[in-house]
Amino acid sequence: MPRTGRDALLEVLRTEGVTHLFGNPGTTELPLMDALATADDLQYVLALQESTAVGMADGYAQVTGRPALLNLHTSAGLGNAIGNLTNAQANGTPLVVTAGQQDRRHLHHDPLLAGDLVGLAASVSKWTHEVTTLGELGPIMRRAFADAASAPTGPVFVSIPMDVLEEAGDAPVPARSSIDRGAVAGGVETLARRLAGTAPERLLLVAGDEVAASGAVDALTRVAELVGCRVQGSPLHSNIVFPTAHPQWGGPLPPHASGIGAALGAYDTVLLVGGRAFMVYPWSAGPAVPQDVALLHL
Amino acid sequence: MPRTGRDALLEVLRTEGVTHLFGNPGTTELPLMDALATADDLQYVLALQESTAVGMADGYAQVTGRPALLNLHTSAGLGNAIGNLTNAQANGTPLVVTAGQQDRRHLHHDPLLAGDLVGLAASVSKWTHEVTTLGELGPIMRRAFADAASAPTGPVFVSIPMDVLEEAGDAPVPARSSIDRGAVAGGVETLARRLAGTAPERLLLVAGDEVAASGAVDALTRVAELVGCRVQGSPLHSNIVFPTAHPQWGGPLPPHASGIGAALGAYDTVLLVGGRAFMVYPWSAGPAVPQDVALLHL
Amino acid sequence: MPRTGRDALLEVLRTEGVTHLFGNPGTTELPLMDALATADDLQYVLALQESTAVGMADGYAQVTGRPALLNLHTSAGLGNAIGNLTNAQANGTPLVVTAGQQDRRHLHHDPLLAGDLVGLAASVSKWTHEVTTLGELGPIMRRAFADAASAPTGPVFVSIPMDVLEEAGDAPVPARSSIDRGAVAGGVETLARRLAGTAPERLLLVAGDEVAASGAVDALTRVAELVGCRVQGSPLHSNIVFPTAHPQWGGPLPPHASGIGAALGAYDTVLLVGGRAFMVYPWSAGPAVPQDVALLHL
Amino acid sequence: MPRTGRDALLEVLRTEGVTHLFGNPGTTELPLMDALATADDLQYVLALQESTAVGMADGYAQVTGRPALLNLHTSAGLGNAIGNLTNAQANGTPLVVTAGQQDRRHLHHDPLLAGDLVGLAASVSKWTHEVTTLGELGPIMRRAFADAASAPTGPVFVSIPMDVLEEAGDAPVPARSSIDRGAVAGGVETLARRLAGTAPERLLLVAGDEVAASGAVDALTRVAELVGCRVQGSPLHSNIVFPTAHPQWGGPLPPHASGIGAALGAYDTVLLVGGRAFMVYPWSAGPAVPQDVALLHL
Repeated sequence: MPRTGRDALLEVLRTEGVTHLFGNPGTTELPLMDALATADDLQYVLALQESTAVGMADGYAQVTGRPALLNLHTSAGLGNAIGNLTNAQANGTPLVVTAGQQDRRHLHHDPLLAGDLVGLAASVSKWTHEVTTLGELGPIMRRAFADAASAPTGPVFVSIPMDVLEEAGDAPVPARSSIDRGAVAGGVETLARRLAGTAPERLLLVAGDEVAASGAVDALTRVAELVGCRVQGSPLHSNIVFPTAHPQWGGPLPPHASGIGAALGAYDTVLLVGGRAFMVYPWSAGPAVPQDVALLHL
Repeated sequence: MPRTGRDALLEVLRTEGVTHLFGNPGTTELPLMDALATADDLQYVLALQESTAVGMADGYAQVTGRPALLNLHTSAGLGNAIGNLTNAQANGTPLVVTAGQQDRRHLHHDPLLAGDLVGLAASVSKWTHEVTTLGELGPIMRRAFADAASAPTGPVFVSIPMDVLEEAGDAPVPARSSIDRGAVAGGVETLARRLAGTAPERLLLVAGDEVAASGAVDALTRVAELVGCRVQGSPLHSNIVFPTAHPQWGGPLPPHASGIGAALGAYDTVLLVGGRAFMVYPWSAGPAVPQDVALLHL
Repeated sequence: MPRTGRDALLEVLRTEGVTHLFGNPGTTELPLMDALATADDLQYVLALQESTAVGMADGYAQVTGRPALLNLHTSAGLGNAIGNLTNAQANGTPLVVTAGQQDRRHLHHDPLLAGDLVGLAASVSKWTHEVTTLGELGPIMRRAFADAASAPTGPVFVSIPMDVLEEAGDAPVPARSSIDRGAVAGGVETLARRLAGTAPERLLLVAGDEVAASGAVDALTRVAELVGCRVQGSPLHSNIVFPTAHPQWGGPLPPHASGIGAALGAYDTVLLVGGRAFMVYPWSAGPAVPQDVALLHL
Repeated sequence: MPRTGRDALLEVLRTEGVTHLFGNPGTTELPLMDALATADDLQYVLALQESTAVGMADGYAQVTGRPALLNLHTSAGLGNAIGNLTNAQANGTPLVVTAGQQDRRHLHHDPLLAGDLVGLAASVSKWTHEVTTLGELGPIMRRAFADAASAPTGPVFVSIPMDVLEEAGDAPVPARSSIDRGAVAGGVETLARRLAGTAPERLLLVAGDEVAASGAVDALTRVAELVGCRVQGSPLHSNIVFPTAHPQWGGPLPPHASGIGAALGAYDTVLLVGGRAFMVYPWSAGPAVPQDVALLHL
């Protein structure tokens, strides 16, 4: 079912627990303003200058312990915020900062108040990105909240062209990941429960090059043998991540989303061991991870 | 009439006088390879490593005195070329360097060989850009050739996502500008002939802030009175660029493409005096300059 | 005792366990070549083109599991290496890449082969830096080895002006840190042994804002009470990191190196809890950490 | 005679015609404040927030038609100014923006309020630079004023470490260039008068690669024959810039400052034709252009 960019944006905000936005909007934020007009659960806290908006968002984030949403207007509004963002960065305050960019259809004409928003924000941000397609809006915003909250916490920046918010089409919003940032012990226990609760033939283990790099091939083999599940390598992995003559070895995953999706679709639960599990090369249709497969990542 | 990105690209190459491309292609260049298969007037000169491709393009550009087209493959191919591009930059060789970027639909998944191509090329380029929409491919490539050939000459870089080349739709290719880079005297004479050859009521003069900044309001007023044409200010100009009570003054142009287009449509010839003549703010349909209006720029 | 930059560089290499350097040197590497002429324990492996040097260093690092040293010559040599460095970055190979920069005394004249080396290397590096003073050469190179080897591992880049290697003066080389990258359990045990083995009056605990941010004030207070040591806050900390009326609380450290050094000099062992323990503001003479104080960092 | 960085800075300001500085200083500006205390001809106009300081400097520059000096404090002060600097950049207002950076001796410890000042300012500046040695302070500030005032005019940014202002030593301040930005005709007349007024044996003509690139070898040869002076090529030039068997040809200049200085010392007046006339490679003592040689550049 198609939906607009602004609806996808609001879904990310709600599933991240956002109830207040701080900022000073302008024309490029009009689609968002329209959407907020009927969103009773989301309150926009207006500041008269952007320095103040940063201060409010910073204090709110520090008190709640969650990323605050700071909404700015093009190069001028973002520019006014940079001073207090140097402070937020020094404090490590988790902030998701968005600024409206001009319409993609005439961005190459360098319209008024457009500019290199990502370049402006880069020195005060952990991560920056300018959204280029409707399809990536949801995943990028989800990542922004995750990055802002990951140690070392800090501001992240996303530039959103005005027309992306108005466009309707395929606008996926991935589910929020549950990340255990505590000591290893806690996460391992949860993981063990999940593995024990899945039938071995419904469980796939995917091993990346990090397994080889950290000398964990033997350990992984023992775990796989205990669990009795199938093991595959991440696409295009470079080293031996599992004994290739082992009866549980299923070879590497293919390097395209449709092939990965087909392989994963046979399972309920997939455990990744290593960081770049689903490397793709040519584009192919569909998500690599089917929606009803639970993904665990060590 | 819709056309594909690759057809728009070939039209730019042909109208820029390109007959040879130098490079080492990969998957992201396949749409271009397909297009070249039936283009007997364009020859692809293959190099086995990218350093060599740079050397060939550099020598060709120096000998012909025109920008040469260097075609590279993603981050790896561009990376191999950087060394010799430092040399081309030191020489001021006019090169238009393109590299294939991954498909926009999964670029945010960081697929294999994708990467920050613009960041890689920035230190060896006069100007860099990653194409984000089919609509901007033609104008961006046209600008690339103009920038490479403008003093101080040098390499410019354009990253082109693979799917932009395959996409079909509105893909305008602006006409090539005729730029007189010689001493002022020559250009002024041509200009004078053009002004003299247009009926005053079919001629519009558009003045930008540069007129005020360089103290040329009086001079411009005398020219306008001699010619007898209407004068308008560029959109959102900040200073007095023409006496506002003057009978020939038509006020500032509006800051959107459709309004500018409507205003300009009443004339055959438009002379811009100043650099940012058609500043727009909100997006609106259509080009700012109607296709049958001749644009002169001082 | 004064020493030259090249001697400081060799000391870092030796204490990092380097026995082989890979590269292709030029004039800016002459001071290093001179130093290596009498260093029988360090072997320079010459490559005829920089792509090959990267390949050798990459393979060596993967096999040894330690950062390999790749030595390049100015913008041209670094440029040739960029292609294979995109591969090293994708692999996460730990590399310490150095390139010789031109003499600082005429760098602003933009001499031949100088250039924005840090900009060139940025897209293929985890971290980049151009050394600007003799005094920072040792700490920067030490950090380069630590960063390359920290997860996620990868290439780091240091640009070294030729005259820094020849200059003699105060060129400190900090001791190598011992970092337990394994699961928390192992590090905690070591830490406990160190704390238990120090007399409480010779032990200082320094708490940063991270203690407050992670809700660990109570836990830290219990540890401090068990150990019986003094607790101070890191300079200019923003939140309550320890009960300020507690008899073991010694207030925040001052925000300058000489003051921190004086405070720490009264102890044998200092345990930092939090990330930015020794924030300074104005410059003052001397290192913040006296040489005979053992520093533990959680 | 040695002098301090702050004295060199004031000399540049005075010879650029500066009478007012706009800004909001902090600790890193203390050396400048001390110097201004006894400089009755220079007035510091204080703003309470940096946005306002930008506004004042912008208006002053627009009214006077000369670059205004904007003085900011570290990352926080520069950050507050970015918003209005986006406006100054859009206006093309000539501004020389300086910000105090932390002391070079502990910059690698990342002290409070230090940061990537050049990165912060890059998106709102024509040109940016962080001063790294006392010797380059004067030339860099001279260049900043020239760049801000050159078309297209706009803000330029210089980061100045606090200790550079206090350091005493060799701190050259090059003479201000006289640049004729008008139509070619005017400049040519002045040039002709200068050539005609110099004895041929006291005049040297230096030709760069631009002569060959623009097909001007024959024209240059005729000029040289008319004048009767000696002609040399710029160091390491790549193409034939003058007939090498011509009796007036003196070969290329050597690629080091001491050799260039020795060659130029035999003349009263040197005319450069081309852009990179004094390319050097290894460092050598002394300036390339002796102080009593008049330099003309076409």
